[in-house]
Amino acid sequence: MKRTAGPLRVALLGHGTVGAETARALTGRAAELSARIGAPVELAGIAVRRPRTLPGIDGSLVTTDAHALVSRGDIDVVVELIGGMEPARSLITTAMETGASVVTANKALIASEGVDLHHIARKQGVGLAYEAAVAGAVPVLRPLRQSLAGDRIQRVTGIVNGTTNFILDRMTRSGGTFQGALHEAQRLGYAEADPTGDVSGADAAAKMAILARLAFDTELPIERVQFEGITHIGPGDIAHAEAGGYVIKLVGTCDRTPDGVNARVHPMLIPLEHPLAGVRGADNGILVEARAAGELMFHGAGAGGLATSSAVLGDLVELCRDRVAGPGTAPAEFSQVLPLRPLAQVAGRYHVSMFVTDEPGVLSQVSAVFAEHGVSLETVRQEGLGPQAQLALVTHRATDAAVTEVIAGLAALPCVLGTVRSIRILGHRKEPVG
Amino acid sequence: MKRTAGPLRVALLGHGTVGAETARALTGRAAELSARIGAPVELAGIAVRRPRTLPGIDGSLVTTDAHALVSRGDIDVVVELIGGMEPARSLITTAMETGASVVTANKALIASEGVDLHHIARKQGVGLAYEAAVAGAVPVLRPLRQSLAGDRIQRVTGIVNGTTNFILDRMTRSGGTFQGALHEAQRLGYAEADPTGDVSGADAAAKMAILARLAFDTELPIERVQFEGITHIGPGDIAHAEAGGYVIKLVGTCDRTPDGVNARVHPMLIPLEHPLAGVRGADNGILVEARAAGELMFHGAGAGGLATSSAVLGDLVELCRDRVAGPGTAPAEFSQVLPLRPLAQVAGRYHVSMFVTDEPGVLSQVSAVFAEHGVSLETVRQEGLGPQAQLALVTHRATDAAVTEVIAGLAALPCVLGTVRSIRILGHRKEPVG
Repeated sequence: MKRTAGPLRVALLGHGTVGAETARALTGRAAELSARIGAPVELAGIAVRRPRTLPGIDGSLVTTDAHALVSRGDIDVVVELIGGMEPARSLITTAMETGASVVTANKALIASEGVDLHHIARKQGVGLAYEAAVAGAVPVLRPLRQSLAGDRIQRVTGIVNGTTNFILDRMTRSGGTFQGALHEAQRLGYAEADPTGDVSGADAAAKMAILARLAFDTELPIERVQFEGITHIGPGDIAHAEAGGYVIKLVGTCDRTPDGVNARVHPMLIPLEHPLAGVRGADNGILVEARAAGELMFHGAGAGGLATSSAVLGDLVELCRDRVAGPGTAPAEFSQVLPLRPLAQVAGRYHVSMFVTDEPGVLSQVSAVFAEHGVSLETVRQEGLGPQAQLALVTHRATDAAVTEVIAGLAALPCVLGTVRSIRILGHRKEPVG
Repeated sequence: MKRTAGPLRVALLGHGTVGAETARALTGRAAELSARIGAPVELAGIAVRRPRTLPGIDGSLVTTDAHALVSRGDIDVVVELIGGMEPARSLITTAMETGASVVTANKALIASEGVDLHHIARKQGVGLAYEAAVAGAVPVLRPLRQSLAGDRIQRVTGIVNGTTNFILDRMTRSGGTFQGALHEAQRLGYAEADPTGDVSGADAAAKMAILARLAFDTELPIERVQFEGITHIGPGDIAHAEAGGYVIKLVGTCDRTPDGVNARVHPMLIPLEHPLAGVRGADNGILVEARAAGELMFHGAGAGGLATSSAVLGDLVELCRDRVAGPGTAPAEFSQVLPLRPLAQVAGRYHVSMFVTDEPGVLSQVSAVFAEHGVSLETVRQEGLGPQAQLALVTHRATDAAVTEVIAGLAALPCVLGTVRSIRILGHRKEPVG
């Protein structure tokens, strides 16, 4: 779109916590933002669901007709903060087709429609930015997309869901249950009334899809990110982890091997000396491994309206700057469609634990199952508990498929009592991707 | 400059470690880089000091006439990897005046001439990027300049010199002397034959000038960054630090208060639980505190040819993308000239230690000097050593000026033997800027 004369015009869709903070910046700090952009910037309108008065905002700027606002034709940047799929998707599409650049914090939409939205932005020659969609204020998408664009990223490992990190951290500190920690997270505002999206791992999976696409410059359907949540983690698992020098966290990983890319989310044992072990409370932390840059760690607040507004404003300033310079730099389309490697082929070390009857020959039966599926053992710990014993084994690197078979085999042994529990161990740093 | 047709043309100035790595990427991974950029990219020439054959590079691309190369008029991006002031400065200027965008890793030049170079880039409408000049591959300039452009940065605290961090880390682990650790750093390639620029703090000061400018969007002359090095740090200081739960590191800080901005570099005691305490070996780590984003930590390899080439290639891809979209997004000029706050006014906590004669009344004389200058004490530790005692005191927050007067006053006391040593303590997190 050819810019019309006058200041850059910004339209806001949504006036929740992040929207209100963004509006406050655009009205209260317009001079500062204009200086950063190199041209005057102004709030051109805010779309809200129900008509209401917004503190500090001229009533004539407020509308309930979001579609009319984004189709006006004189908007430079639309900031979408409604969330969800519709009407966000239609509004963003209309905005770009009308020539506006778009900033969004909508993780779900970008995770599921990001490839199409990049395509529309590219076709229209407008900007599309969504730093706030992953890890709140922690700038990680721009580094992946720009700073490391000339490098080759091999793996991204991250704690990208603050709710689950808070819950696991609380369980670790207090020794309490998942339910107790969840209630505390809800009380403190770190978890929603319906926490399913967070505790199931689905939220982290959406973020890993976005990270993997930008890291590996490839399309990656959100449906192909396998995830497992934390609802089954109990105080016993936490205690086991501590005894072995680990902490349990919900970890998202995406990596690239010659066989393809994989992205996944599941709880993992993290060695205490690993940088991700230090990511506490509701923080987010992301470790990027690249061929030339080596290991880069990003750490900060993962959520919260104020932190998210920082990322939104950063994107807004950048897209505005681009509009001053020209029509705007559209995001690159994903230039490859790398093959996807199934989780079953991903290798790693596992911690496997179970209760067994405490009698001669049990260890031999158990270890035979591992051997049968080609999984070798690094350590074995046995603790007698009267008529039962608890066995905790750590494997050498083995594929997910092999370990799944081992667990089925163990469960079928008469000497094994109850469930066989397994959890992946985050590799030593510098361990090969795979 | 109007782009001529055909692929984007890149000229390299210098073929050392970083230059060779960059050339290798441009020749060996041209297809991958072109996909990232959205247009074909090619190596158009390499300027070297003395005529020689470069492995894997077509001889016709190699020239000793750097000036002719940058003035050709068909170059899209010049990558300057010569270092130093001249001829780097003239070549960069000529390149921009001829319409090329410029990537440089030249920290000294950007620190001393950055404001002018931004101005030229802006006037010519070309790009200028220098992520590699600070913290090697750790992407920190782009986050400051873009991701946090809508936020208000309050303080940046960083370990930005890998050589001194390696030396202090080694002294801490081995209990050895500065000279011993320096020799080991030299043997391992972490320190140059003449280590003055690193161990004096001058290198870190140049980086802090660059960081402060981008963080606060203000001009800041390199001459106004006060710095102190690590050559006077001995095993006794390290032991003292350890006893108090600290580690000594060379820390650069820049902050903004209503009174103005300040940037400085000096050794500091860092509490072991502080995230910067975990920055080991030759790594770099930078903690950014912003109003909305909160605390953000960036951590990775600070130097090395391969890591630096990652940052150079990231800048190169970004500036090439901009050229595809239009004439290129010029860097913002610094929009403010904030007042500079002298170091004397900066407040913090101090660790002060000295040997005193072990007789009654000494502690009273010593504490009277602190009181006289309005400096209150947090803790006092005294250890008898025969006829002498060692006193170690920690102050509450006091200005640099007040502590300087306290130290002069202490040195004048007859009961104080030898030198009074003082070292700043890195504030608890969330401590007010100032």
